[in-house]
Amino acid sequence: MPKNAFYAQSGGVTAVINASACGVIEAARRHGDKIGKVYAGRNGIIGALTEDLIDTSQESEAAIAALRYTPSGAFGSCRYKLKSLEENKREYDRLMEVFKAHDIGYFFYNGGGDSADTCHKVSQLSEKLGFPIQAIHVAKTVDNDLPITDNCPGFGSVAKYIAVSTREASYDVRSMAKTSTKIFVIEVMGRHAGWIAAAGGLAADAENDIPVVILFPEIEFDQERFFARVKAMVDKYDYCSVVVSEGAKWPDGRFLAEQGTRDAFGHAQLGGAAPVVANMIKDALGYKYHWAVADYMQRAARHIASKTDVDQAYALGQAAVEAAVRGENAIMPAIKRISNDPYEWEIISAPLSEVANVEKMMPREFISEDGFGITQACRDYLVPLIQGEDYPPYENGMPKYVTLKNEAVAKKLPAFEI
Amino acid sequence: MPKNAFYAQSGGVTAVINASACGVIEAARRHGDKIGKVYAGRNGIIGALTEDLIDTSQESEAAIAALRYTPSGAFGSCRYKLKSLEENKREYDRLMEVFKAHDIGYFFYNGGGDSADTCHKVSQLSEKLGFPIQAIHVAKTVDNDLPITDNCPGFGSVAKYIAVSTREASYDVRSMAKTSTKIFVIEVMGRHAGWIAAAGGLAADAENDIPVVILFPEIEFDQERFFARVKAMVDKYDYCSVVVSEGAKWPDGRFLAEQGTRDAFGHAQLGGAAPVVANMIKDALGYKYHWAVADYMQRAARHIASKTDVDQAYALGQAAVEAAVRGENAIMPAIKRISNDPYEWEIISAPLSEVANVEKMMPREFISEDGFGITQACRDYLVPLIQGEDYPPYENGMPKYVTLKNEAVAKKLPAFEI
Repeated sequence: MPKNAFYAQSGGVTAVINASACGVIEAARRHGDKIGKVYAGRNGIIGALTEDLIDTSQESEAAIAALRYTPSGAFGSCRYKLKSLEENKREYDRLMEVFKAHDIGYFFYNGGGDSADTCHKVSQLSEKLGFPIQAIHVAKTVDNDLPITDNCPGFGSVAKYIAVSTREASYDVRSMAKTSTKIFVIEVMGRHAGWIAAAGGLAADAENDIPVVILFPEIEFDQERFFARVKAMVDKYDYCSVVVSEGAKWPDGRFLAEQGTRDAFGHAQLGGAAPVVANMIKDALGYKYHWAVADYMQRAARHIASKTDVDQAYALGQAAVEAAVRGENAIMPAIKRISNDPYEWEIISAPLSEVANVEKMMPREFISEDGFGITQACRDYLVPLIQGEDYPPYENGMPKYVTLKNEAVAKKLPAFEI
Repeated sequence: MPKNAFYAQSGGVTAVINASACGVIEAARRHGDKIGKVYAGRNGIIGALTEDLIDTSQESEAAIAALRYTPSGAFGSCRYKLKSLEENKREYDRLMEVFKAHDIGYFFYNGGGDSADTCHKVSQLSEKLGFPIQAIHVAKTVDNDLPITDNCPGFGSVAKYIAVSTREASYDVRSMAKTSTKIFVIEVMGRHAGWIAAAGGLAADAENDIPVVILFPEIEFDQERFFARVKAMVDKYDYCSVVVSEGAKWPDGRFLAEQGTRDAFGHAQLGGAAPVVANMIKDALGYKYHWAVADYMQRAARHIASKTDVDQAYALGQAAVEAAVRGENAIMPAIKRISNDPYEWEIISAPLSEVANVEKMMPREFISEDGFGITQACRDYLVPLIQGEDYPPYENGMPKYVTLKNEAVAKKLPAFEI
């Protein structure tokens, strides 16, 4: 009997993490000789710890195929980081116990840096215990901060959403600027790195002369230079769009969003960086503003996903299974860029020992010298990642996303407290 | 020589106001025997007052055709309401002077309630002065509050955007609810009426059992009942999506957004209704939240426009010209619904005397008895308006919107102070 596989989604979900799930499950189904059933963790790794497994073999081919165009995490995700082996051997032992009980020989973990680390530890432990588990990491993160891989599934679609939304809203504010709004501020995700903020820079191009000022987490915020930059843009264009990363910081290290604002009851301020930035521009320069916070909309926006991103998410899921079938272990399939134009890429194997606990930051040469924009090198990097549209099917005017049955596998072990 | 036409865009722009401009200009070009050039006001009616006219005959057929899929106001819009004839005869006289100087016999005004009123006054004045101007209003407003017409171009596309975004973000929060976010709050436009908020209710349907709680401007906010409702949803589903209209109000009439919040310098609070609602849920019920403010993104989102909306926007622009050519005056082409399923509609003529200064509110029977949702009647009304997708063309991963040349017509009159 072939071993079963365990698959789990980890951390913040994306528009395309289910496309990776689709790639994993469809590839596993093609390798019935080597892989038995694919069990998914309900709510990620918590599902493994609590033995709450979903039997994906109960889902129809059509339902699994629909994962390719369904945003979010179809099996549920979680924010739960396993501690080190030393600190929490109990949890790793439990994982092994559950894997043994359900005859699991493959561990596919779909997430970012933390889950790459967990995946790596599982493979080390399995070796140590002499219990064979092939642990393969499937890359996913809108933050685009995993090393070795050229980019991370999830990022391209957020980038496309932010680029398109910034262009559209810029056209809008341009129309209104004569008598009304001159400033549009959009807040985007990225607490540590400015990859998503950089995508706002794609709103402008050779045929779209749009003034976009970007506030990156990587660049120390200089309020006076920022005001001067915005004023110069308004003087020239009559309006200005500002893309602010949620991770943008004051020189003292506080986030821009932390304004020390209190409500009538003394509660800390409620808002994000966008209203703070919009308001400071109004105070200093007097311009009327509008602001938006994209929040979950940006990472869930499957309706405007990048086809490149969807293709890569699927391909990496599939490659994870192919690698497992070939006998690989402790690796992460990664994207290697071959050329920018035409965009060509291939999949390579990255050892988890080199992926875990390494964060890839934006190179300084991707940010313009003045710190408020992107360079041509950044554009050359980003543009291929937003190529192509991959629209979901619609019914009655709405995207027809799938909700799986998610039937539970019968438990075999005593309960476990997490 | 046929008379020229004047066309202007007014108030907040939309994803489809340019589709109406496209309808006006293409129809006018087909009626060269009756209509000379189409001059557009640069930045709306201000362009007429300052004699800043754009010669649309300088734009290629392809550029005008591209207006159909370009969001925003291609000629610029403005927030500038002409006062009554008695209060500001000077401005009306100036309009007539400019129209005479440029041999304008047709006035097409593309906007909401205020511009319908202006359009009506222009037609009355022209009659009074014996200077023949046919004034036709082209409906546009995301607020969906014009009378007689079944719905207003611009609304269907915002409705689709909000419905799709709420569904997508709900899938996202559902994935995260086990260990992280349980509440997603999205703030939508609509200061006076809850039409756009109602569209958030379309996120749920027979196949998508999503808990959506809506805060309408029409319903007095009852905080305790709201908390009970949200708690019931979280108890049942483990998560809840909240759609809050920017117009939602406390029982004393203040907007929810007005929390009396002050920053360290004593400035009034910065945020919108979404962070206020998210925070009060956290305080009362302890749930982790995320919130988004769609702002301009919702009305500029041509990438996810409703095909029905685009078709109607174009058809009303075209119908305005056809009506003018037939000799009609002081009217607004309006949409009459013939049937819901299949959705059928036709265009009728609404007299401006019955359009000006009338606001169409949401009927109470469109809001569920408990005040937090939409009824089947509301659903039957809304669903046809979001039917169909009408994607813009893309190039290099980005929508290829048009920016016109907007060449000015030579001025013939002395300057005018506004």
